[in-house]
Amino acid sequence: MTSSLPADSVGMVTPQTAHFETPLNLECGRTLDRFELVYETYGELDASASNAVLICHALSGDHHAAGYHSSADRKPGWWDNCIGPGKCIDTTKFFVVCLNNLGGCAGSTGPTSLNPATGKTYGADFPAITVADWVAAQARLADKLGIDTWAAVVGGSLGGMQALQWTISFPTRVQYAVIIASAPKLSAQNIAFNEVARKAISSDPDFHAGHYAEFDTIPRKGLMLARMLGHITYLSNASLGSKFGRALRSDELKYVPLDIEFEIESYLQYQGERFAENFDANTYLLMTRALDYFDPAQACNDDLAAALRPVEAKFLVVSFSTDWRFAPDRSEELVKALVDARKAVSYARIDAPHGHDAFLIPDERYFDVFTGYMNRIATQLGLS
Amino acid sequence: MTSSLPADSVGMVTPQTAHFETPLNLECGRTLDRFELVYETYGELDASASNAVLICHALSGDHHAAGYHSSADRKPGWWDNCIGPGKCIDTTKFFVVCLNNLGGCAGSTGPTSLNPATGKTYGADFPAITVADWVAAQARLADKLGIDTWAAVVGGSLGGMQALQWTISFPTRVQYAVIIASAPKLSAQNIAFNEVARKAISSDPDFHAGHYAEFDTIPRKGLMLARMLGHITYLSNASLGSKFGRALRSDELKYVPLDIEFEIESYLQYQGERFAENFDANTYLLMTRALDYFDPAQACNDDLAAALRPVEAKFLVVSFSTDWRFAPDRSEELVKALVDARKAVSYARIDAPHGHDAFLIPDERYFDVFTGYMNRIATQLGLS
Repeated sequence: MTSSLPADSVGMVTPQTAHFETPLNLECGRTLDRFELVYETYGELDASASNAVLICHALSGDHHAAGYHSSADRKPGWWDNCIGPGKCIDTTKFFVVCLNNLGGCAGSTGPTSLNPATGKTYGADFPAITVADWVAAQARLADKLGIDTWAAVVGGSLGGMQALQWTISFPTRVQYAVIIASAPKLSAQNIAFNEVARKAISSDPDFHAGHYAEFDTIPRKGLMLARMLGHITYLSNASLGSKFGRALRSDELKYVPLDIEFEIESYLQYQGERFAENFDANTYLLMTRALDYFDPAQACNDDLAAALRPVEAKFLVVSFSTDWRFAPDRSEELVKALVDARKAVSYARIDAPHGHDAFLIPDERYFDVFTGYMNRIATQLGLS
Repeated sequence: MTSSLPADSVGMVTPQTAHFETPLNLECGRTLDRFELVYETYGELDASASNAVLICHALSGDHHAAGYHSSADRKPGWWDNCIGPGKCIDTTKFFVVCLNNLGGCAGSTGPTSLNPATGKTYGADFPAITVADWVAAQARLADKLGIDTWAAVVGGSLGGMQALQWTISFPTRVQYAVIIASAPKLSAQNIAFNEVARKAISSDPDFHAGHYAEFDTIPRKGLMLARMLGHITYLSNASLGSKFGRALRSDELKYVPLDIEFEIESYLQYQGERFAENFDANTYLLMTRALDYFDPAQACNDDLAAALRPVEAKFLVVSFSTDWRFAPDRSEELVKALVDARKAVSYARIDAPHGHDAFLIPDERYFDVFTGYMNRIATQLGLS
């Protein structure tokens, strides 16, 4: 961090923790008797609680979406470039809430928490969580914060699935949904990549069937592999090409198969190692399964338009041309279903080189669309 | 196998082994003092040795390209649908040679062979091999078989790289090159996937730094992960979707993250397990590095047309619309360079749903192009 905060930063933020004592029934059939959610807020909730925006995080995200935790922070929150005074989600207009999801590993109740039934870390005994479960837990947080209706629920990737699920689970509690670089369900290829990541984790001898905490270890290599693989799917072929190409790590080839020869290998290894130190393996398994399971059309015989019929929200859907994890045609499935269900939807397919990660990266056309839509919400709701 | 051989089969075939005692200097700077290559032939070499076609195999292929080894064989060789009487490569016209490449694990000298210097299995001590090394070894086999000039060198994927390298290493010894679903070099994304596969293998505690044979084990889980990942990249998103979609393994979800939930997971696991029992991990590492290293333009300041200027062969290049491992634009890079270098090249971009594996799968348009080109070679060379 620079010594002074940028003028368009939300500034210093402090995570808060909400405690919930009413049992939460989960889709898997199990119940959490009590749980905690860690969250941050940016901006001010207005007197009628009409300006609240929920940010839903993706696979490896957390509650720290914007601002800084301390002056020692080198980086702000993960979506800082979109949240702040004058930014896409303008905190002079909106009260922004971002939480670490249930099952996460950044403070909310999850596999690294103590299981009250055993007094030990949950580990692999933590129940499977679905996107609908997340939304149910988020609704509890909304209740606690006195937010009956969200002005908007916003998310990219897995976060976009939560935004979509909000409009289905609680049709009257969401006015606008912003769904970026997402899909209404995973394809077989998406599931296949997730499965290789899970197998990498479970094959690590330090995984101990998910109870590694009891062995005072973590499945470091498995998590590293999972992240390396994930990372490839977040970036486009073109962006990897322009960033790394075939650049060598040394002046010449070493001809030793397991030595690092190319820059791309070194980069992936660094990403993998850093992730393995900071993320929980059971949470990774749980999150990838939440992705796999998400399929709101299933309850309506695979008719997504039918599933969306009770929805009352208006939608902005954004896709990116080089995103091959959730390619534009996946967003367009959703747009088509919304149109078929006669819902209000704006759609932008942004020509951007960054692949799936484009939803996190500043881009003029993307930010223009995003800012314009959020500002129109503010105007419609009489917030500014 | 059915009790009687199909009429268009090359029939029963027996692998042969060629021994080479003249040292082979490798690109990595090391030398193999002696080596063996196992190979098969189909059809008859004519009196002037003018009808010989070399088939180069891809990553996990071997010398058994066509026909059956015994009446108990359930499946014929890996490219049986393209090689035989009346097929794309018509064995009534051509004498077809296919070998297991140096460094392979199907009988040719490789990491599973005894290292004469130590009396132990080579394992990780086997030298790195490049595509140019393979071609040099294949040329030794051609010498031994009395073949001065190949009517054609043919290959898909990594096999196509060998065909291209033949035209550069031995311009006067190849009349036609057929390069299918290939690329003139790997992209950063291609290398990245290979690197994850290598890391999966080397992270397996049973890998023992490549000397698993001495520990009487194999890195089964690592190889399985490598193959699962590779397999995803061989198939198209669409073909995985139409084959598996989101079909469940059981009637309903189990909500246990590591249980098999979807059919695609079960399929990948089966593919991975089968591969791990039948393929050598050090060979896999060596083969993926040969892929990574291949870059014939590098010696000419990344000018592929310049690298191709000395070439004398004529070319057929084939790509497949849904191949995202080596997408059509990768073949078109090669075609453009060939045109720029004023070489004769025919190019077909086949609209096929099967992804990279399309080069192995019967498709009327693909086979028409392939057969037509091979038959024109036969006519041009006065073979029929």
